[in-house]
Amino acid sequence: MMRLFYFPTLNGHKVTIALEEMGLPYDVEIVDILNGGQDAPAFRAVNPNGKIPALADGDVRVFESAAILQYLGRKSGRFYPAEEAVRTRIDSWLFWQMAGLGPMSGQVNWFTRAAQKPGRDPAETSLAIHRFRKETTRLFDVLERALAGQDYLCGDYSIADMCVWPWIEKYPDNGGGLAAHPHIAAWHARIARRAAVQRALAVGLDALRLAGEGKA
Amino acid sequence: MMRLFYFPTLNGHKVTIALEEMGLPYDVEIVDILNGGQDAPAFRAVNPNGKIPALADGDVRVFESAAILQYLGRKSGRFYPAEEAVRTRIDSWLFWQMAGLGPMSGQVNWFTRAAQKPGRDPAETSLAIHRFRKETTRLFDVLERALAGQDYLCGDYSIADMCVWPWIEKYPDNGGGLAAHPHIAAWHARIARRAAVQRALAVGLDALRLAGEGKA
Repeated sequence: MMRLFYFPTLNGHKVTIALEEMGLPYDVEIVDILNGGQDAPAFRAVNPNGKIPALADGDVRVFESAAILQYLGRKSGRFYPAEEAVRTRIDSWLFWQMAGLGPMSGQVNWFTRAAQKPGRDPAETSLAIHRFRKETTRLFDVLERALAGQDYLCGDYSIADMCVWPWIEKYPDNGGGLAAHPHIAAWHARIARRAAVQRALAVGLDALRLAGEGKA
Repeated sequence: MMRLFYFPTLNGHKVTIALEEMGLPYDVEIVDILNGGQDAPAFRAVNPNGKIPALADGDVRVFESAAILQYLGRKSGRFYPAEEAVRTRIDSWLFWQMAGLGPMSGQVNWFTRAAQKPGRDPAETSLAIHRFRKETTRLFDVLERALAGQDYLCGDYSIADMCVWPWIEKYPDNGGGLAAHPHIAAWHARIARRAAVQRALAVGLDALRLAGEGKA
């Protein structure tokens, strides 16, 4: 049985979405990242970078959410066509999310929320907020154009959609908002309705509650 | 013939390294990113995100440097073993570079150099510099441990090394420095000596000079 090292975050959701969509059986091992679980040696043996999600399957040890999506796509033969003209397009969007939308939208979130401690001078965050908001808006605009005239990013629903969707779901306003991006909004709603997605988002919610109590 | 949309940057170097190592023939189309070349409609048709590198090969259009590495690895059958236990490890490190080392080290560079205009209050950049230096140092430490006891990241020399190496080559001090990371330093020197790597770094240098003159 595959073992998913997991905590209910938006990068974690990519993988539970894929597993639920593909109908692959898996065990969930909660890594309590709110209380230092990522430092456990057994987890580091699977992911030397110490972040969730990670996956162990026989002699396979894979980390980084989109690397897991590619592996699951190959394993299941679903949502990841082998034809190179399609596969390379899907891979391009996976890396676009991982290298672009994720880090940039994540920094918007950090500088506008986590960094805003009492007593923080706004001058300490304004340059970074301007920089990351601008780039995130550019990325939303790229995504908006890519979704014009098609229901999903690369033709049929694929792991590319599963990779990008949680970052829109979690931070819909970072890039200028869904109201300003109707193609993204329609695509977001289309995927949000899927039963597998709804099941995926429910995985591990008890762990989140318990971890929060451990931290409190 | 494959067409590489290129400018001599560190992400561009990943791809010329792979092409030279694999011995694949290719044409270089310089995208003059210092003078708006990334906005040309013909280029946007290959990469809707408007960044180099990108690659066209028959009906394949692939963007994001590491997606190109994966494609070239599959096409050539070299430096990218198909055995899942190895392939997933390589993929994990590709995404680690693209989602972690690249964005974090890149932000250190931007906030410590490009952002330091005359008259800039140091308070505007100090929080971001602290944040991104800390994470880049963590990533260097992860890489250092991964390279302990082996010559390359995933056993034999692979596209994972080709993906990470240019970011160490370009910004060796962002993560605490090579002197503090002897395994990274030895690995860096090992790859720098390769003839294909030296050929790769020379591609497009004329274009860099000409673009600089166009901008000046």
